[in-house]
Amino acid sequence: MTHPVYAYDTTLRDGAQAQGISFSVDDKLKIVRKLDELGITYIEAGNPGSNPKDLEFFERVRELTLRHARIIAFGSTCKVGAEPAEDRQLESLLSAGTPAVAIFGKTWDYQVTAILRTTLEENLRIIRATLAWLKAQGREVVFDAEHFFDGYKANPDYALQALAAATEGGADSLVLCDTNGGSFPDEIFEITRAVVSRFPGVAVGIHCHNDCELAVANSVRAVQAGASQVQGTINGIGERCGNANLCAIIPNLQLKLGFPVIPAAAMPHLTPVARFVSEVANVEHNDKAAYVGADAFAHKGGMHIDAVKKNPVSYEHVPPESVGNARRVLMSEVAGRSTILGKINDIDPALTKDSPETHAIIERLKELEHEGYQFESAESSFELLVRKMLGKFTPSFELKEFKVIVNEPSVNGVNSSAMIKIRVDGEDEITAAEGDGPVNALDRALERFYPQLREMRLTDYKVRVLDSDKASAARVRVLIESADAQNSWSTIGVSSDVIDASWRALVDAIEYKLAT
Amino acid sequence: MTHPVYAYDTTLRDGAQAQGISFSVDDKLKIVRKLDELGITYIEAGNPGSNPKDLEFFERVRELTLRHARIIAFGSTCKVGAEPAEDRQLESLLSAGTPAVAIFGKTWDYQVTAILRTTLEENLRIIRATLAWLKAQGREVVFDAEHFFDGYKANPDYALQALAAATEGGADSLVLCDTNGGSFPDEIFEITRAVVSRFPGVAVGIHCHNDCELAVANSVRAVQAGASQVQGTINGIGERCGNANLCAIIPNLQLKLGFPVIPAAAMPHLTPVARFVSEVANVEHNDKAAYVGADAFAHKGGMHIDAVKKNPVSYEHVPPESVGNARRVLMSEVAGRSTILGKINDIDPALTKDSPETHAIIERLKELEHEGYQFESAESSFELLVRKMLGKFTPSFELKEFKVIVNEPSVNGVNSSAMIKIRVDGEDEITAAEGDGPVNALDRALERFYPQLREMRLTDYKVRVLDSDKASAARVRVLIESADAQNSWSTIGVSSDVIDASWRALVDAIEYKLAT
Repeated sequence: MTHPVYAYDTTLRDGAQAQGISFSVDDKLKIVRKLDELGITYIEAGNPGSNPKDLEFFERVRELTLRHARIIAFGSTCKVGAEPAEDRQLESLLSAGTPAVAIFGKTWDYQVTAILRTTLEENLRIIRATLAWLKAQGREVVFDAEHFFDGYKANPDYALQALAAATEGGADSLVLCDTNGGSFPDEIFEITRAVVSRFPGVAVGIHCHNDCELAVANSVRAVQAGASQVQGTINGIGERCGNANLCAIIPNLQLKLGFPVIPAAAMPHLTPVARFVSEVANVEHNDKAAYVGADAFAHKGGMHIDAVKKNPVSYEHVPPESVGNARRVLMSEVAGRSTILGKINDIDPALTKDSPETHAIIERLKELEHEGYQFESAESSFELLVRKMLGKFTPSFELKEFKVIVNEPSVNGVNSSAMIKIRVDGEDEITAAEGDGPVNALDRALERFYPQLREMRLTDYKVRVLDSDKASAARVRVLIESADAQNSWSTIGVSSDVIDASWRALVDAIEYKLAT
Repeated sequence: MTHPVYAYDTTLRDGAQAQGISFSVDDKLKIVRKLDELGITYIEAGNPGSNPKDLEFFERVRELTLRHARIIAFGSTCKVGAEPAEDRQLESLLSAGTPAVAIFGKTWDYQVTAILRTTLEENLRIIRATLAWLKAQGREVVFDAEHFFDGYKANPDYALQALAAATEGGADSLVLCDTNGGSFPDEIFEITRAVVSRFPGVAVGIHCHNDCELAVANSVRAVQAGASQVQGTINGIGERCGNANLCAIIPNLQLKLGFPVIPAAAMPHLTPVARFVSEVANVEHNDKAAYVGADAFAHKGGMHIDAVKKNPVSYEHVPPESVGNARRVLMSEVAGRSTILGKINDIDPALTKDSPETHAIIERLKELEHEGYQFESAESSFELLVRKMLGKFTPSFELKEFKVIVNEPSVNGVNSSAMIKIRVDGEDEITAAEGDGPVNALDRALERFYPQLREMRLTDYKVRVLDSDKASAARVRVLIESADAQNSWSTIGVSSDVIDASWRALVDAIEYKLAT
């Protein structure tokens, strides 16, 4: 038995509460467009009452033409002892001009008396009055029942009275929040089922947090108990351990359990949207994420890889392309020769596992891994290595020497200069450039020889210390991700010197660009 | 209704299959010691049949005195058409000399015919024969029923016949594996319950993968259905989306549901053990992890912080110290003045939110955040900033100038040299040093003035590109974590130049060390 489920995204409101997350108005508008393409029904996008800067967003979002999404502004019940019509926070909320609003209110008796510091009756009044007033202004109103599960466990009668007050005020939906993230799937199922049967005319929603690593399961169980609205964020971003992760909930419900949530044609947008949000939020995309992580369909270990090749259903619970992701086969000691051979055969199909070239490549790989290289995340560097060892790659240049000078304070507005000497076509060439930082100076010096490098962008630059007990003399591993308009590729450099490691990764990135 | 549950850790075997994870023998021994302190019952530590290098580990682990843990070696059923006594893989398994072994075998009919390519009967024979032979050698035997849930869904009779073959062979426990990670909590509950009632004399275990972000919920539901052994890894490391995360499962079962899993006194070791494993595995510890992440009890957003202070139960589902973690209050635009004021009051209790000093600090904070600083992860830099602005900090030195030269190839074995000019006690001092990389050269130059810096270690060094569209000229943020024997502290530097940003973070780290 399935029923339609409405996805309610709060990446831009509750998600933005996460440590290290801060979205500009432009960021928010870009994300709204992507969520709309994904077929999300509701986008809760800000709290105009507590953050006046959100008003600019709400003004500009009205100019977007959205196909699926309704924008929601978020606020709270009016002040204790006061009327909604006099409440400045509600005034700001309305001034956002959204078709729908979400109002959070208290449903746990303890919270009412200890935190809100009012009577249980007054809390019911402000819920009822706030919702009735917003309905009178023509808004669709979502009621977020804060701490609902804790409240229900402590005092089920009162928690249900609070929901009843919301429906008396005209709530279009009642959202049950596991605010502390402390509830379990069986409790969520039973309590949601009780609410659904008690309020048959109103949509019931679920809003979970991941403090017990149960938010996805709890959301799914609530839907199985009859909830028709599921709240969460892209990649599960949010305070503490995060909100419920829509990137797992949506495919779980739709692909695995058959609940329609988003248009079927939009499902392959899931992975690109997840990566886009990580990029805009400036957080590393979680490689291990279900469905949308780079490792979600990555296989390592000889035995598994053979089995995956024989039939993907052996080790993949859904086809990677169904969610816009892709299968990857990884290299490592454990993966064994057959995996490495597969990569080698992409370049030279004639080689076998017993070819001397294959042995030589595996030996070299082991040496480099011992030095701290890791090619699993730097496949372009691995490809260059194999091509070089097979004589299938002519380097565009050979580095003879570089010198970098960094000055602090800057001299004539320049902090770094680099001299490089390279050999091209048997001739030594020397050039120099200034730059904003030493890696940029090196990059610019090379651009003098290869103007086509100007269309290349460095999209990520990561440095990791390998032996932390050696303080600032530790060996560092630099991973660079580069992109041009068509492609992206990743390369690696390892050295005790961050500049030298960066240079190695940069040279591979440039060689790869020039060769392809 | 609760019952004792045995924790079965496979970090060192199934966890080590994860991309980017590779443990040395010493790493493994260190982790075994920590898992034993945590009170884990079973430690599955390697696959001697497929990885001969594991044998050194098994030899050395016998020298450890463990209080709780039994070490398990992992292998598979004997070859199709052959006898266990002639199987070299089983011979290696026994040569590991562990008191217990785990054997995986097929229980999904499709896998038997399509992957193993044998008859359903022959598969039952090799399960029965392998287990009987291992029992005859005096081993405790765990049977890992690979793909059990998919198998049961496809052909319940056959899946149960495979378990029956294992019990006929003498299996001490039957572990139900959701190998593809594609099953749901309700299915896991029902199927586990059916197995528990079918095999009343044998312990039933659960082994989940996180491909639907449901592994923790699935493991908990299996225990609620009667399973008494729960398999997983520290931090959920493992192939693809990871294994079930014991760091969430153990406190969920023991603190929230009342199932005894580890000694109560060991629970506060959970967070330190989780961080230790991340460090040894050389992966970033997940800040968002339930129970053991740095953000798990971090609060941001003015309203919540007030409520947490009034009573922690409002926003914390367990006390952070119960799992060896700690509450953190974060700074940010959203957190508002009261949070920042709390930090300021740690330094000067007399200041209020209306003091001009408070306003000035908040303004400066906004400017720096705009430049790309983020003090949430660099609390020591923030403390220095506040002390400086309140006149409560006398810098040990003032930088006048530095020059760094990096040579590739190295000149006389040295790749980097640094000259620094600093002002100390009104006098300009100039010094220089060579180093292994430019940051090391700068660090060493400063050590000439402050020999006590030699006891300081750089424990992490992270670089992040802030505006990736500017290629190698992008602004970078460097976060440094430093430690001495007593403390650790984190500092930040932002610049378009990685050396300059590193220098800024390094100077804060050194100032902090010298001041405390």
